[in-house]
Amino acid sequence: MKQKLNIGLFGFGVVGQGLYEVLKTSPAFDTEISKICVKNKKERSLPEEFFCYQPDDILNDPNINTVVELIDNAEEAYKIVKKALQNGKHVVSANKKMLAENLPEMIQLQKENKVSLLYEASACGSIPVIRNLEEYYDNDLLLSVTGILNGSSNYILSKIFDHNQSYDAALKDAQDLGFAESDPTFDVEGFDSLFKLIILTLHSFGSIIDPNDVLTYGISNISDFDIQYAREKRYKIKLVGQVERLEGNKITLFVLPRFVRKDKYIYSVEDEFNGVVIKGKAYDKQFMFGKGAGAHPTGSAVLSDITALAHNYAYEYKKMKYADNFEYSKEHKVELYLRYKDETVLEKFSFESITEEYKGPEYNYKIGYIRLADLLRIKDELRDLDIFMSITGASLNY
Amino acid sequence: MKQKLNIGLFGFGVVGQGLYEVLKTSPAFDTEISKICVKNKKERSLPEEFFCYQPDDILNDPNINTVVELIDNAEEAYKIVKKALQNGKHVVSANKKMLAENLPEMIQLQKENKVSLLYEASACGSIPVIRNLEEYYDNDLLLSVTGILNGSSNYILSKIFDHNQSYDAALKDAQDLGFAESDPTFDVEGFDSLFKLIILTLHSFGSIIDPNDVLTYGISNISDFDIQYAREKRYKIKLVGQVERLEGNKITLFVLPRFVRKDKYIYSVEDEFNGVVIKGKAYDKQFMFGKGAGAHPTGSAVLSDITALAHNYAYEYKKMKYADNFEYSKEHKVELYLRYKDETVLEKFSFESITEEYKGPEYNYKIGYIRLADLLRIKDELRDLDIFMSITGASLNY
Repeated sequence: MKQKLNIGLFGFGVVGQGLYEVLKTSPAFDTEISKICVKNKKERSLPEEFFCYQPDDILNDPNINTVVELIDNAEEAYKIVKKALQNGKHVVSANKKMLAENLPEMIQLQKENKVSLLYEASACGSIPVIRNLEEYYDNDLLLSVTGILNGSSNYILSKIFDHNQSYDAALKDAQDLGFAESDPTFDVEGFDSLFKLIILTLHSFGSIIDPNDVLTYGISNISDFDIQYAREKRYKIKLVGQVERLEGNKITLFVLPRFVRKDKYIYSVEDEFNGVVIKGKAYDKQFMFGKGAGAHPTGSAVLSDITALAHNYAYEYKKMKYADNFEYSKEHKVELYLRYKDETVLEKFSFESITEEYKGPEYNYKIGYIRLADLLRIKDELRDLDIFMSITGASLNY
Repeated sequence: MKQKLNIGLFGFGVVGQGLYEVLKTSPAFDTEISKICVKNKKERSLPEEFFCYQPDDILNDPNINTVVELIDNAEEAYKIVKKALQNGKHVVSANKKMLAENLPEMIQLQKENKVSLLYEASACGSIPVIRNLEEYYDNDLLLSVTGILNGSSNYILSKIFDHNQSYDAALKDAQDLGFAESDPTFDVEGFDSLFKLIILTLHSFGSIIDPNDVLTYGISNISDFDIQYAREKRYKIKLVGQVERLEGNKITLFVLPRFVRKDKYIYSVEDEFNGVVIKGKAYDKQFMFGKGAGAHPTGSAVLSDITALAHNYAYEYKKMKYADNFEYSKEHKVELYLRYKDETVLEKFSFESITEEYKGPEYNYKIGYIRLADLLRIKDELRDLDIFMSITGASLNY
């Protein structure tokens, strides 16, 4: 049975405006947007009467049964989504930070209020990865989910490796084209990928992991030396999020740059695209690829969630109910390339074994195995050191 | 609510055996196979008491609520699936020919008997394309679905284009490795792709098309001349099935070889892999890639269907209920490369316009636009003519 949705929309940027247009012109969506909450009064593409300026004008409207939240600010989004769910409204959200930081509460609120919160647009834009992990890979054959989850940093890395640009020039290009924010920290330091990975981990293995507890290291420290090193070995460097099942009912996860060889699917994910490799015991590897960000891909994911809501779809979080709960292991060892200048920095890194060492006039590097726990202990310092870290891929199952 | 499945299995080849193992050893599947129907008594990996030899031993067993049908013969599969549904059992099937030829009845039987028939394994093996079209692309933004749907013919074409083999040598290799049957007609003439395309068309646009009514032309007539032509232009030839939405609430579909340039996603689908490009108004293009055939990929698709059944999932065929029904148009024009020897053969081809002509010592070709209807009129003769046809891609939206 299909239910008729009456939508209150928060945010009227490009995604919101596109959404409004599609819902108005497509007969298949038996759905209307009846109110739009925005921050400021100004000239807009719709008549004044569509807009309101107080969240409660939507949240307390008994005729509105669905809230679509498309605002940037995670704290505001949290308040809106929470109250909407409490007031018995279904919600579609794209806010990965808000979701990743509040998953237990978001699940609880859905249960208590018998409403549905969908958020396909929060991870990998138009690629239906959450829905597939939840529904199609709903069994215990899943081994790992590995992806290029952030379009901005991937755009920068593509410019570096395919167009021989420096990091700074590539970042400026990305900013000029709107692929990176003026403060690019969220994207290039890996936080955007991290929040997406936290959401994917829940739908992959039924585990809720605190984002503060996950090693997250981005690409802002990449130097020409590192780029040169990777090029000589015919690698590209990609910023990759991965959650992987280990022996003995454990999982591990991290966001780290990675040397990627041509034989990996993610090697050919270029520019602002996203790509996810889903690996399992019987199906081996599946690869899903598409536009990960931008108004249209985000809009299409939101649309699919709206259609799903109309058909009474809700995430069941089935994997949380499996008998076995996966334990998050930080004992996992990765083979790490560590480029450094100053020898004293090495004291911070407790390599278990060393595979290669190089000393040169400008920079030095070590490659060796190191426990995630030993990196997590120093994770807040990492960004400020004159180093660059990348995993070699040798220890990885993807 | 989860229901407990008690499965009767038809067929105990590699897929069936793998399925049995996984269901037995994975605690997440609260499901058991209680009887297996096979053709002949012989030494098997399970004790004698698991097996039966009469379909009715399963079909009339009131304790069995689910039938998994993994046999090759389409006529036998039809009888088994029909009776299982009539007897109130859910069914998982991988038989694309049986399904494509009996879709209206299969939908009706599900409705009448309030049971679910799932068949993800019937199209693109482990790639969850049917489920995604049914659930995630459940809106009227979809523009086209284009895919390499058959692993055997793609393996042959890969050997030709990446390893410089002749068609005959590549076919023999494929047969030796088990990627092609001793009678390869079903694969290389495009019928396997056709049946999959018919199923995808239903879940893409809600339209049931008679397979006999669809232009299907394979790769068996490919000559060294054609291969040389494609190579010079830096194309690969791929066997592609496509269903595309046209202006004015129409769709068109066909299975034809195609010249594919490097900028297309399907260019890099090699060997026995499958790849599907889903194109829509907002999300642009999505690409799904994975193993399309073989025991494990097929088994994993069957497993996902079994899990879905346990959660009471059924295809709703939502797109059949859209207000607008798509009409199948044969008026669509494609730009066709036609290689021929004997001039008289041209009388059969009613080109609307000619783009290029070539005459040479051995072979000649014409490239021009032609209506599908004009090819459909002569479709039964095409395979016996000394020609090769491939579409150029110029007229295609994918």
